[in-house]
Amino acid sequence: MTRRIPASTIRRLSHYLRSLEDLEASGDETVSSEELALRGQTTAAQVRKDLSHFGSFGKRGLGYRIEELSARLRQILGVDRVWKVALIGAGRIGSALFEYPAFESRGYECVAIIDSDPAKIGTYWSELQIHGPDDLESLLAELGVELVILAVPARAAQEMAERSVRAGIKGILNFAPIRLKVPRHVPVEDVNLVMELEALSFAITQHGSEP
Amino acid sequence: MTRRIPASTIRRLSHYLRSLEDLEASGDETVSSEELALRGQTTAAQVRKDLSHFGSFGKRGLGYRIEELSARLRQILGVDRVWKVALIGAGRIGSALFEYPAFESRGYECVAIIDSDPAKIGTYWSELQIHGPDDLESLLAELGVELVILAVPARAAQEMAERSVRAGIKGILNFAPIRLKVPRHVPVEDVNLVMELEALSFAITQHGSEP
Repeated sequence: MTRRIPASTIRRLSHYLRSLEDLEASGDETVSSEELALRGQTTAAQVRKDLSHFGSFGKRGLGYRIEELSARLRQILGVDRVWKVALIGAGRIGSALFEYPAFESRGYECVAIIDSDPAKIGTYWSELQIHGPDDLESLLAELGVELVILAVPARAAQEMAERSVRAGIKGILNFAPIRLKVPRHVPVEDVNLVMELEALSFAITQHGSEP
Repeated sequence: MTRRIPASTIRRLSHYLRSLEDLEASGDETVSSEELALRGQTTAAQVRKDLSHFGSFGKRGLGYRIEELSARLRQILGVDRVWKVALIGAGRIGSALFEYPAFESRGYECVAIIDSDPAKIGTYWSELQIHGPDDLESLLAELGVELVILAVPARAAQEMAERSVRAGIKGILNFAPIRLKVPRHVPVEDVNLVMELEALSFAITQHGSEP
């Protein structure tokens, strides 16, 4: 994981890319840092600072060339290519993810689904057959899966993560409410709903106590 | 929103609290920063730094008193109380959230569900009846809802957010893939699956280019 770039910057880069694509779709050719700031609920200075991590963009008084900046952001975020994804866990969260409309359009292609429920193994979601966990290593390696979305209960998550890493995957999006132990070269993004709610109640509580 | 505490610190506080509760359940009375670090996949120095934001804890050589530290963390994170939550959007993500086992046990009580689908309005999830969006303001105000989980399509999210704010809610957990515009005093936590995947592909891409 790159240490120098804060997670909040990466999130804003994603937002800028969304805005640039909207602007591109409406036929615009250039955009100012002020306009990007407005769309991203941040400041023009923050936009310029975020982008400065990755080189020099835009011209004073002329703004950024939209096509150029969005291409560069796609490259920085690693979305100028298709990522092969396996979904491990075909429960409610798994199915919500599988049907998430923006998922495939952003270059994340789900090529395998794995679940331990015998009632689900062998059935199809769209054209993808659900496999049992026994097939995990062979399936991931054969298909060249790089990203794993882990949407299994906490008790199964660490084992599934370790087996995925042994099968050669490069990163994990983890929905299980545990801190996975994986080698340092495998980044993990945790999506933990309780932690998100706690961040919210923290913000409200602290806001109230510091008027 | 408190500016001085980074989001990554808040996330680690949530992890520490989980670890402390596990330790409490197994009957331990004290814990060292090293042990907390090990469980949270971080360093002892980071644990001490994170906690130092909120005062002085623990004694050199004796570690932290588990009961005291977990009580303090609950207070800091605002989870030493029950939060009334409304779920707006009873689709796949909404239903996955509603059934999330850790949700209610952590003090977040879902007291209202709202959806615009006529086929869903009037039906029940557990003992909660699903209401139509027309009832939003009256329902939220009557029930004293403080947190809203927004799991509606992007096109509906801004309107639902504004109406919730007018009904007096204090914070929003937003699953819609847009940047909500709400007053500064209402914190928003965004859960955006594409952005999480982009953070992952960024980390993998940057790791590869900086060996």
